[in-house]
Amino acid sequence: MPRDHDVPGGVPSAPAPLADTEPGRAPSAAEQARTLVAATNIGALATLTAKGDPWSSLVAYGALADGSPVLSLSRLAEHGRNLASDGRASLMVSGPVAGDPLATARVTLAGLAERRDGDAAARDALLDAVAAAATFVDFGDFTLWALRVDRVRWVGGYGRMAGADGADYAAAEPDPVAAQAPAAIAHLNADHADALLAIARKIAGFPDATAAACDGVDRYGLDLLVETPRGTAAARAGFAVPLASAGDLRTAAVELTRRARA
Amino acid sequence: MPRDHDVPGGVPSAPAPLADTEPGRAPSAAEQARTLVAATNIGALATLTAKGDPWSSLVAYGALADGSPVLSLSRLAEHGRNLASDGRASLMVSGPVAGDPLATARVTLAGLAERRDGDAAARDALLDAVAAAATFVDFGDFTLWALRVDRVRWVGGYGRMAGADGADYAAAEPDPVAAQAPAAIAHLNADHADALLAIARKIAGFPDATAAACDGVDRYGLDLLVETPRGTAAARAGFAVPLASAGDLRTAAVELTRRARA
Repeated sequence: MPRDHDVPGGVPSAPAPLADTEPGRAPSAAEQARTLVAATNIGALATLTAKGDPWSSLVAYGALADGSPVLSLSRLAEHGRNLASDGRASLMVSGPVAGDPLATARVTLAGLAERRDGDAAARDALLDAVAAAATFVDFGDFTLWALRVDRVRWVGGYGRMAGADGADYAAAEPDPVAAQAPAAIAHLNADHADALLAIARKIAGFPDATAAACDGVDRYGLDLLVETPRGTAAARAGFAVPLASAGDLRTAAVELTRRARA
Repeated sequence: MPRDHDVPGGVPSAPAPLADTEPGRAPSAAEQARTLVAATNIGALATLTAKGDPWSSLVAYGALADGSPVLSLSRLAEHGRNLASDGRASLMVSGPVAGDPLATARVTLAGLAERRDGDAAARDALLDAVAAAATFVDFGDFTLWALRVDRVRWVGGYGRMAGADGADYAAAEPDPVAAQAPAAIAHLNADHADALLAIARKIAGFPDATAAACDGVDRYGLDLLVETPRGTAAARAGFAVPLASAGDLRTAAVELTRRARA
């Protein structure tokens, strides 16, 4: 759990809910991590040089069914030489960067990289995610690796962070609505500001809300930015049941709105 | 220098120039590195945990006049704790990712991070690049760091890579036309395909070129992708003189075209 920052005087804090809320479930750190890892194919690998210095490099990756990242690295490249002599590694994957870089969601997966040459599942996982890897994966100087994840650190943005262990990470699922979330958020904000305001007032615990915008959608509910006379607050409104697919988003949003207006 | 990959049979290689060329100067690895570092404010930091494991994390950075990255990190964050106990670090910065992730230009800067609390130049460099840092740079748990760069590794994409030392990196300049390069490339390809073809045939050494597209512009010249009956080749055409600013781009392109048609 994050401790509080040592904040100089005068920095305003966010207003608290005025009513009891039923925020429902939110994605765990392990789920957030699996979702970020599934959403892209590029990350930053940290390895150890021969001297034990930390080395940061760009990598393209795929992922096995348990979320273990798969890499194909050349022995001619520094990170390939590093892993061959010491398998300790961590991979940082970030979500889209927009505006403030430190508001970017990101995750670090740390563990031990293991050789997977000849492992068809690993090779397929890489090629599924990185089409261009077909041009080099069979070069004689490239070797296939899977990162066995022992520790996960997720940072969702300012003040949103948590850890997970390797077993939780392996057992978690990527969020099935993640790919549709940006479109859903844009639609809710453009066409349903009234519904979001009702949800902020009745479900999310801010009866004094004057406006609300959606800034996150996942299988469990909505993240809201709520304007109040007391300031702007982050709030959460949970769906009645977790969604199995993005096709369930519309029904869930309608149900949430109906509850807010009941 | 990169050695050749150990390539299986049957992989075609790019055609060579058929005529002598005067490619002129190209940006050095140190210049490429300075340009990438100046172009953004977000990177991946590799540090060492208490156990000596490599830890990859997202950071926002500014840069001092000599290109040294400046970071403000919380002692509550893993990378902040890591640096406080061992200053060895490297920062990977990448250019825009489009299509094949491994075609992305990137650079790793490795060295030793040093505390810079109270250093106004470092604080200003950070705030100039990362406006949001104003909200936390003075928090009591945040400390200011500058990475003293000892070693640079630049990768421009497939088969384009080189190293530099800290002195070369510090002495190099970011390319002054980099910010305008994407617009210049789009303009050349959209409106001056005939000029690019003439440049490919007469300046870049491909008299058998059937088409040419620009895929890079820097202060020293153009990178071209040249179609020939023998396949597609990467080629280079140098400007008569290095450009001092993006305002010189048009004149330089006109001069290059005139030489190609002479």
